Amino acid sequence: MQFDRLLTNARLATMVPGGTAYGAIEDGAIGISGERIAWAGPVAEVPGEAAVTENMDGRWITPALVDCHTHLVFAGDRSDEYERKLAGEDYAAIARAGGGIRKTVEATRKAGAAELAAGALSRLDAYALEGAGTVEIKSGYGLTHDSELAQLKAARGVGLASGMRISATLLAAHTVPVEYEGRPGAYIDEVCIPLVREAARTGLADAVDAYCEGIAFTPEETRRLFIAAKAAGLPVKLHADQLSDTGGGQLVAEFGGLSADHIEYTNEAGIAAMGKAGTVGVLLPGAFYALRETQRPPVEAMRAAGVPMAVATDANPGTSPLVSLLTAANMACTLFHLTVEEAIAGITREGARALGLAGEIGTIEAGKMADLAVWDIERPAELVQWIGKRPLHGRILGGEWL
Amino acid sequence: MQFDRLLTNARLATMVPGGTAYGAIEDGAIGISGERIAWAGPVAEVPGEAAVTENMDGRWITPALVDCHTHLVFAGDRSDEYERKLAGEDYAAIARAGGGIRKTVEATRKAGAAELAAGALSRLDAYALEGAGTVEIKSGYGLTHDSELAQLKAARGVGLASGMRISATLLAAHTVPVEYEGRPGAYIDEVCIPLVREAARTGLADAVDAYCEGIAFTPEETRRLFIAAKAAGLPVKLHADQLSDTGGGQLVAEFGGLSADHIEYTNEAGIAAMGKAGTVGVLLPGAFYALRETQRPPVEAMRAAGVPMAVATDANPGTSPLVSLLTAANMACTLFHLTVEEAIAGITREGARALGLAGEIGTIEAGKMADLAVWDIERPAELVQWIGKRPLHGRILGGEWL
Ligand SMILES: [Zn+2]
Ligand SMILES: [Zn+2]
Repeated sequence: MQFDRLLTNARLATMVPGGTAYGAIEDGAIGISGERIAWAGPVAEVPGEAAVTENMDGRWITPALVDCHTHLVFAGDRSDEYERKLAGEDYAAIARAGGGIRKTVEATRKAGAAELAAGALSRLDAYALEGAGTVEIKSGYGLTHDSELAQLKAARGVGLASGMRISATLLAAHTVPVEYEGRPGAYIDEVCIPLVREAARTGLADAVDAYCEGIAFTPEETRRLFIAAKAAGLPVKLHADQLSDTGGGQLVAEFGGLSADHIEYTNEAGIAAMGKAGTVGVLLPGAFYALRETQRPPVEAMRAAGVPMAVATDANPGTSPLVSLLTAANMACTLFHLTVEEAIAGITREGARALGLAGEIGTIEAGKMADLAVWDIERPAELVQWIGKRPLHGRILGGEWL
Repeated sequence: MQFDRLLTNARLATMVPGGTAYGAIEDGAIGISGERIAWAGPVAEVPGEAAVTENMDGRWITPALVDCHTHLVFAGDRSDEYERKLAGEDYAAIARAGGGIRKTVEATRKAGAAELAAGALSRLDAYALEGAGTVEIKSGYGLTHDSELAQLKAARGVGLASGMRISATLLAAHTVPVEYEGRPGAYIDEVCIPLVREAARTGLADAVDAYCEGIAFTPEETRRLFIAAKAAGLPVKLHADQLSDTGGGQLVAEFGGLSADHIEYTNEAGIAAMGKAGTVGVLLPGAFYALRETQRPPVEAMRAAGVPMAVATDANPGTSPLVSLLTAANMACTLFHLTVEEAIAGITREGARALGLAGEIGTIEAGKMADLAVWDIERPAELVQWIGKRPLHGRILGGEWL
C-alpha cells in the first residue's frame, strides 16, 4: 500500500466497538490516502510506505469529535434575560415582555444569511479548538419561509468557511410563530411542509426536526410533517419527551428516524421502539443543567434495549448556553451517569450515527474519512474528566491538518 | 496627570460596589502609571495625557479574574479512578487499592519542585486564557516537611514563570498521611506546626489552610494549627463544613480568618460570626457538582449577614477537576442561585478579598494594580452565561500587556 500520509507512534482510540476499551491500539499508526483512512492498526504491521510520515510522539488520536445537535445559527443576545432570571424575575413576565425564544426569532428574522453565518462562525471556533470535525446546525429561529432558508444557507456557508463538516437540519417546527399563535396546524401545513419540499429540492437540509411538546407541536402535527419529510426523501429526528411524555420516542422510531433528542421522559415502549428502529437517543445534559431539571433520561433502559446513545451540546442562547462538547460529555457522566467510554462514543461514533453518517465518520477505520483529533493527554478519560482544559494538539479533517 | 498608558473607548465593569450594576462606566477610560491604575472614569473626563494611548474599540474591561482557591500543584493522574467510579466501582474499594488522594500524595512526594511546577504551569494556561490575573495555589499533597515545601516552591516558581500573581497557601493539614494514620494530632504537632513556622520564616506561604471535617481534622486540631499560624504572623482560612456541620465557619471567624471555603453545612451562628469578622465565604460549585452533592451553601443567609461571597474552581484531580473560572461562575449561578453580578464579583473583588488583597486587586480604581481583562462581549453577563466560550481579547497585568 502507498499512503499519502502516515501517522506513526500514536495511541489510537479508534472507538470501533467490540474489542478493547475505546477500541484502543497502543503503538498505533494510521495510513491516509486522499481524504480517507486507508489503514489503521499496530505500528509494527504497517502494510506499506508513505509520501509523508509524521511521528505523533505517543499522543492519543481519536476520531474528530461530532456534535449532532446544536442551534448555532442565530442572531441577538439573551444575556439580559439570563441575568434577570437569576436576579429572581418571573420567566413568564420576561416572555410577555418580548423575551425568550421570541427575542431570538425577532433578531434572526432581521439578520441576513451573512450576519447569521458570522455569528455562528465565532461560536464554532470553540468547537474547533476542542477537536470537533462535524457539527450539526438546526434552523428554527426564522419561522418564515425565507428566514428558515437563510438559516440553512448560513449553516452551509459556515461549513465552507470553517472547513468543518456541517450537517444542516430544517427545524421550522421549533415553536409556533406569533403570526400563527393558536394555529399550530396551519403553520405546519402552510409554512413547514412547503419548506420541507424546498429544502429537499435545493439540498439545503440533510434532515427534518421538530419540537413535539405541550408548549410546541402535538404528535399529530409532528406526524404530518414527518410524512412530508419522508415523501421528500429527508430523514427525520425529533426533540422528544423533554418536559413530559408525549410518545415522541415511539413516533420518531415509527418513521425510522435518525434520533430522538432530550428524551428525559421517554417511556419503555418508546425505548423499545427506538432500539428496534436503530434510532439514536441523543442526550443533552447542557439543557438539563441550565434548566435545573431533575428527571434524568432512561439511560439504563436504553442500555438494556441496545439504543445507541449520543451526547451533544444543544448550544442555544436560551436553554443550553454551552459550546463545549467536552463539557457536555463530562455532564453526561456526572448528571446522567454514563460511563466515560459511553460519553466519548457519544461525541464520536454515536454522534455520527445520529447524523446518518456512521459509514463516513465517527471511528478510526479503513474506508472512513480521515477526520482525526490529536490530543496531549495520557489517557482518553482525561478528555471527559477535566472541565476547561484545552488538551487538543491538532485536527486532521479529510486527510489534511487544519 | 501624565500616564504611561491610556486605554480609551472602553466599557468598564469596575466592580466598585455601591453605584451602577457592575460598577459600570460606559464610554470609559483607564490611565495607568507604572504598574498601577492612576485614574479610571468617563473618557470625557480624562485628567491628563499619556505616552501611549490605546483605543479599546468599545470592548468591556473587567478587573483581571481572581481564583482564590485551587490545588493546581500536584503530580500524577486520577483519570483511571474517575473512569472506574463512573463504571460503577465502589469508591471505598478504589481507596483501599491505593486510589483517592493517597495516589496523588504518592506521586507528589516522588516529584521534585520542577516537575510539580511544570504540571501546574500547563494547567494554569487555561486560567490565563480566561482572563485570570491572580490564582491561589495550595500545598497539601506532600504531607511531609520537605514535600510540602517543594509544593510551595513550585507555586512560587509558577508565579515567576507565568507572570501570573500566585498566592501560596500552606495546607499541610489537608489529610492525615499514612505514616500518621490514627494519630492526626501528632501529625499536626510534629509536621504541620513546624511547617507553619518554616513557611512564615522563609516567606513561602501567604496563608495557612486546613481541612476540618470528620474524615480529616477535628476543630480542636485545627485550632492548635491556627494558634501557631497567628503566632507566626500568617492569616488563616479553612475548608469548612463541606460534608457536615463541624462549626468550621465559626472557628475560622474566631481567628479573623480570610475565608471559610465550601461551607455547604455552615450554621446560622457561623454565618453571623463570619459576617462580623469580615471572613469571606468561598463557594466551590465545581466540587458540589462533581460529587453530586445536594446541600447548597446558605447563600440567602450570607446575603442577609453581609458575608462577602467569592467563587473559585477548587481545581484538583479528585473532587473538582475544573480549571475554568468562568464555568465556576456559571455553576455558582445555576447550582447555588447567585446573581450574575454576585458571580462576577466572586471571581474578582471578593476573590481578592478572600486572599487579603482587597487593597491591591479585584476592582478597577485608582491606586490598585493595573490588572485588567479585556473582553469581546457586548454585556458582562455573557461571561457567565455561556460555558466554553473564549471571549478574552487580552490581559494587562501590572500595567503591561501579557
Ligand atoms: Zn435543541
Ligand atoms: Zn479545596
